[in-house]
Amino acid sequence: MQQVNVGIVGLGTVGLGTLTILAENAEQIATKLGFSLCVKAVCSRTVDTKPIPAALGPVQKTTDWREVVANPDVDVVAELIGGSHVAREVVDAAIRNGKSVVTANKELMALYGSEIWDNAIGQGVNLGIEASVAGGIPILAVLREGIAGDRVTALFGILNGTCNYILTEIEKHNTPFDMVLMEAQRLGYAEADPTMDVDGFDARSKLAILAALAFGERITPSDIYTEGIRRVMPVDFLYAHQMDYTVRLIAAARQTPSGLILSVRPSLIANSTILASVRGPYNAVWVRGQYGQDTFYYGRGAGAQPTGVAVVSDLMRVAREIRSGSPARVSPFAHERLGEYEPISIERLKSPYYLRFRVEDKPGIIARLAAALAAQGISIDAVLQLPEENWRDLPFVITTQPTTEESLRAALKEMSTHDYLIEAPFAMPMEARL
Amino acid sequence: MQQVNVGIVGLGTVGLGTLTILAENAEQIATKLGFSLCVKAVCSRTVDTKPIPAALGPVQKTTDWREVVANPDVDVVAELIGGSHVAREVVDAAIRNGKSVVTANKELMALYGSEIWDNAIGQGVNLGIEASVAGGIPILAVLREGIAGDRVTALFGILNGTCNYILTEIEKHNTPFDMVLMEAQRLGYAEADPTMDVDGFDARSKLAILAALAFGERITPSDIYTEGIRRVMPVDFLYAHQMDYTVRLIAAARQTPSGLILSVRPSLIANSTILASVRGPYNAVWVRGQYGQDTFYYGRGAGAQPTGVAVVSDLMRVAREIRSGSPARVSPFAHERLGEYEPISIERLKSPYYLRFRVEDKPGIIARLAAALAAQGISIDAVLQLPEENWRDLPFVITTQPTTEESLRAALKEMSTHDYLIEAPFAMPMEARL
Repeated sequence: MQQVNVGIVGLGTVGLGTLTILAENAEQIATKLGFSLCVKAVCSRTVDTKPIPAALGPVQKTTDWREVVANPDVDVVAELIGGSHVAREVVDAAIRNGKSVVTANKELMALYGSEIWDNAIGQGVNLGIEASVAGGIPILAVLREGIAGDRVTALFGILNGTCNYILTEIEKHNTPFDMVLMEAQRLGYAEADPTMDVDGFDARSKLAILAALAFGERITPSDIYTEGIRRVMPVDFLYAHQMDYTVRLIAAARQTPSGLILSVRPSLIANSTILASVRGPYNAVWVRGQYGQDTFYYGRGAGAQPTGVAVVSDLMRVAREIRSGSPARVSPFAHERLGEYEPISIERLKSPYYLRFRVEDKPGIIARLAAALAAQGISIDAVLQLPEENWRDLPFVITTQPTTEESLRAALKEMSTHDYLIEAPFAMPMEARL
Repeated sequence: MQQVNVGIVGLGTVGLGTLTILAENAEQIATKLGFSLCVKAVCSRTVDTKPIPAALGPVQKTTDWREVVANPDVDVVAELIGGSHVAREVVDAAIRNGKSVVTANKELMALYGSEIWDNAIGQGVNLGIEASVAGGIPILAVLREGIAGDRVTALFGILNGTCNYILTEIEKHNTPFDMVLMEAQRLGYAEADPTMDVDGFDARSKLAILAALAFGERITPSDIYTEGIRRVMPVDFLYAHQMDYTVRLIAAARQTPSGLILSVRPSLIANSTILASVRGPYNAVWVRGQYGQDTFYYGRGAGAQPTGVAVVSDLMRVAREIRSGSPARVSPFAHERLGEYEPISIERLKSPYYLRFRVEDKPGIIARLAAALAAQGISIDAVLQLPEENWRDLPFVITTQPTTEESLRAALKEMSTHDYLIEAPFAMPMEARL
């Protein structure tokens, strides 16, 4: 049978991982497909310094991506450079030239996914985006194919391995965020500029893609309330453990009767939930379906070879579709808008909350905080305080009965005028039952 | 666009769950596909008593499956009757008539999967078998598509919800197997005849299918060493917990340098493994890939609607393939045999073992058991004994260093001549790192 030819643009970690798998695993790939995947062209600004596996045979090496997308021998272009500017040019040009595209680019898909799908369908080509979310976990194949017959009602993910590593290190060693971050940077688990990870933007892009697929809706990062993990303190784990909870950066999409509530934020999750067992740099996604109930998916979130598996598996799927002449026909990002899944404000979220306060020791503090909550109709569930000798600034916790984020914010605004607060209260939703 | 028409044979739990989803979720299904799935015919021996959702519109109702597979309007037949005799006739006839088939039948696929795939490919039709393993978990889509680019090296599953429910009840309440089984039968979690479940045959069929897909090899149930959970005692959990382990019925497929070792058996698994967090009637599959490393999949193993989701998702995939004219071309059950994955005997397994003994109290027992192990070159890791007042028959435990099952069996054979044993020693492999 005739082979399908691949061009690869971008030879960073993921690009080289992809080449390794395509070279080493070529026989099994061909056996599964019934035909071969052949790498015809690779592109990198420093292509001459890159270790291209000899087993791939003769490959066009170029520093100009335009040569790859213009190469008439190339059937599928894998865009593995990242970022949203040049990457978009590469993807658009490839599609325009009638080539299918596989991409690992979460930022690109989160910002322009709908348009890119529409372009691909218009040009009669295929698109593979599995590697853009949770590298080693085939969660997009699950949502698009595996549980396509279900109706997703909620989706919770741990989507950023750096944050999950940092949080579980804080938990394990009772060490402050700043020190754990420095150590993570030293070990290469966090970037020199950690903003994309620790401030939640990376997870936000991934949630935008997951929610678009799960709910068939156009969702942009700006629809997602986003808060990073910088404010999480070791003491939050001590309080969480008292209640048999832990703290994770949770990306959540919840269908409510009035619309879809999307958030990335530190959250308390009960230790009885399977998400609480996700430690270190792993990723996981928990999906609730109306018919299939709860399913859970877990694996490496990043890394050359786990992400490479996602790229290669997508190349295989797209190659099958090319061979059988079945282009993408329906965008998974925007089915006809049913209206029921429109994103709505986080203020509509209803949840119990964990509120941690750092205060100067004065009389009457609890009474004033309780009054601020009561004024918004918020009931207190518990007041927790660890033995005070351990803490200079008396961090203590109030947990609430379920209330809306809107009411909570009003209460927090009132509290912000109280003169004994060392810093604004730190609020996290509590998830007992995922 | 033109619809794809479905005929359903078998209206038991899964059949009715499938009809419910096809009726209630029709709009979302059509939006995702770009065309409708339409139920044209249903068959059951008691079809007149079955609640066929009115929303499906006019449907041919018959007690004769031959009318469904002969109906020229039907494009895909869903075989949901179970068993391997009539079901095979239905599937073979449908394929012969040029219809694609979706089946939830693990027994059929485990026994005749290779032949049925070959028939389907020969007739140019498609086959969907997602519902045959771990109902609510789309694990077959994961293996066939999601991580197709990887090379699976090991796969461990909790594949029988009844057994997992029984084991976690024994663990929770310290209650003997027989009593828990009776209670499970009363609650409807176990069949009146529990053999298929508690003796491991159900899990064996599912493992045969999973291993065939993961390793691309023809595997039959007889290739799988199978042992049920009847011998597991509450005291095994007490000993397991002492070592921070638990006990589960584990279906395992491991690639070794000499071949594939397949087993379904009670096993000790460390509490630090994510499989240990699977409690109650849930199913889970843990996959190790050479490139993607560890991934884990969890959900409902059975039930009308979770299994219905698998059937409907398969119908959607097959319908897409019918519409794009892309029949199955390569059997996922038997790629060209690469040889490296041939099943080999469980005796080649190398593992540490947990050995539980029930003995009459006599002097010198440990010495004689130790001598039997030493004679086979097996090193003892630990000897554990709970305070003896709790136990009439002194169950105690020896754990071993890693050894082969062959050596272990030789030692157990020698031990079987020892006159102080109340029953044959009970052996379980220990899995510290899944």
